[in-house]
Amino acid sequence: MAAAPADDGAGGAAPPAGPVPTAEELQPYLDVALAAAREAGDVIAAAWNAPKRIDTKSGDADLVTETDKKCEELVLSCIKAAFPDHKFIGEEGSAAQGFTDELTDTPTWMVDPVDGTTNFVHRYPFSCISIGLTIGKRPVVGVVFNPILGELYHATRGGGAFLNGQPIKVSDTQELRKAVVATELGTRRDEGFMDACFDRMRRLGQAARSLRCSGSCALNLCSVAQGRLDVFYELGLGGCWDLCAGVLVLEEAGGRVLDPTGGPFNLMSRRVLGANAHLAEAAAAILAGCKYDPQEPPALPPLV
Amino acid sequence: MAAAPADDGAGGAAPPAGPVPTAEELQPYLDVALAAAREAGDVIAAAWNAPKRIDTKSGDADLVTETDKKCEELVLSCIKAAFPDHKFIGEEGSAAQGFTDELTDTPTWMVDPVDGTTNFVHRYPFSCISIGLTIGKRPVVGVVFNPILGELYHATRGGGAFLNGQPIKVSDTQELRKAVVATELGTRRDEGFMDACFDRMRRLGQAARSLRCSGSCALNLCSVAQGRLDVFYELGLGGCWDLCAGVLVLEEAGGRVLDPTGGPFNLMSRRVLGANAHLAEAAAAILAGCKYDPQEPPALPPLV
Repeated sequence: MAAAPADDGAGGAAPPAGPVPTAEELQPYLDVALAAAREAGDVIAAAWNAPKRIDTKSGDADLVTETDKKCEELVLSCIKAAFPDHKFIGEEGSAAQGFTDELTDTPTWMVDPVDGTTNFVHRYPFSCISIGLTIGKRPVVGVVFNPILGELYHATRGGGAFLNGQPIKVSDTQELRKAVVATELGTRRDEGFMDACFDRMRRLGQAARSLRCSGSCALNLCSVAQGRLDVFYELGLGGCWDLCAGVLVLEEAGGRVLDPTGGPFNLMSRRVLGANAHLAEAAAAILAGCKYDPQEPPALPPLV
Repeated sequence: MAAAPADDGAGGAAPPAGPVPTAEELQPYLDVALAAAREAGDVIAAAWNAPKRIDTKSGDADLVTETDKKCEELVLSCIKAAFPDHKFIGEEGSAAQGFTDELTDTPTWMVDPVDGTTNFVHRYPFSCISIGLTIGKRPVVGVVFNPILGELYHATRGGGAFLNGQPIKVSDTQELRKAVVATELGTRRDEGFMDACFDRMRRLGQAARSLRCSGSCALNLCSVAQGRLDVFYELGLGGCWDLCAGVLVLEEAGGRVLDPTGGPFNLMSRRVLGANAHLAEAAAAILAGCKYDPQEPPALPPLV
């Protein structure tokens, strides 16, 4: 790996560690991701109104269903068939399946088969498949598909961001007091987390026009990308599979992705702030002055 | 007016003050409301992606657009042409237009031409037309139409609740810890309101599976009615025009509508708690122990 160049803090301008893949080189990866997302979307849509068998993970706010498992198998098998040497980072995969915990320069897929599982269980219409690919530790392909609203987002690094094939860009909102801000309550309910979570929500809410909670990290990032939200932040989200595709869609739509307290974004840090370029610093300045619980995931140094 | 009978506190079972209109008697009102909602929906959909001229009311969180005004005129003219003697209660109408501030037994329409105006301005897909009719001070017809998601809810008292013509009912979620709860930040940003609002949001959030903020009171009520939310509460909402149609849809779907602190609901009180019948009392018990700001609208005695 080449020495990492200085990062600009926005995650959008520093060159990757190694040659930048061209749009042509990324197209085969995008094609496979789009096909896999559409297939998994059919599975989610078919299961939408059916009774669901639900398992809890860390508690009643942290769910997994048969459909999560079925979609994950489907997406992974599509990708492995096309790119047998690629790696995966995900919630439940084993090393034998090509899963790894450590992000390297090798092409690595990060898949959330159902982002917004609670929404899927309750039929609230913000569930999606999120499929991202990193090369040189940076997202280069991202596909996010909400089959219920029929919204398919995609991006390749340097190639722009699209919703159902049409280019998208972030809003032009220039002041927080005119901004719609999204965040999520997440899965923890202990006092330390609740203190921190509601301190941040209140301070941002007080500064903003309004607050939205949709229940899907990937769709919140894409909603900022298409300009129907202005700011989204979350701390303690599930993992890089919630972020990889959405942050690329947002960057390619002209948005900025930072650590919530304003430093450079790290894809492995389980914390994110995404906004249009006018608002990112202002939102980070507020979040930097808020409460944090020691058990929340810390900021991490930049990856590249 | 006949002496008001005792209310059951749920707003759903007590007979109205006067003869109960039959489904056949309500049908002409429903037909006009549906036609008006579809026409206004076309106006909202046509304006969705266009640049908007925005005026603020109480502040940057309280908006009105040309489309609100156009839709209001359109809906009122449809209703007046069909029922010239009916009354209206709304935000901006004059007595000469048939508007009144006082709810009587006379048939009275409550129309929110764009509920979720902030969503309309930012293109977040939860905006709707809300059209309700009271007779004997009780909602008897309700139509809520989200033209962006193509979701048309309607109900008549005693006739059931429907989404796009299909009967709907509330969820069967029986414990708050498995419930998805919705609320809204509203338009006030002073410390007293923020203290109260975030105290309630935190306590309900701590008890629940997850929290949603969609930005539309009427659509939150309808989402509880169709079972994709389990609980919704809000204090300080705009007025009875945000509530009239949605509370009828929810009651007719088997839900309960209460004052947030557990007393009987009053349509004129600018505060509401709607939930499935399993969860209404449990949510009210938590909300009754929360902070309230003296400037928030108080609970009012039952209307009928």
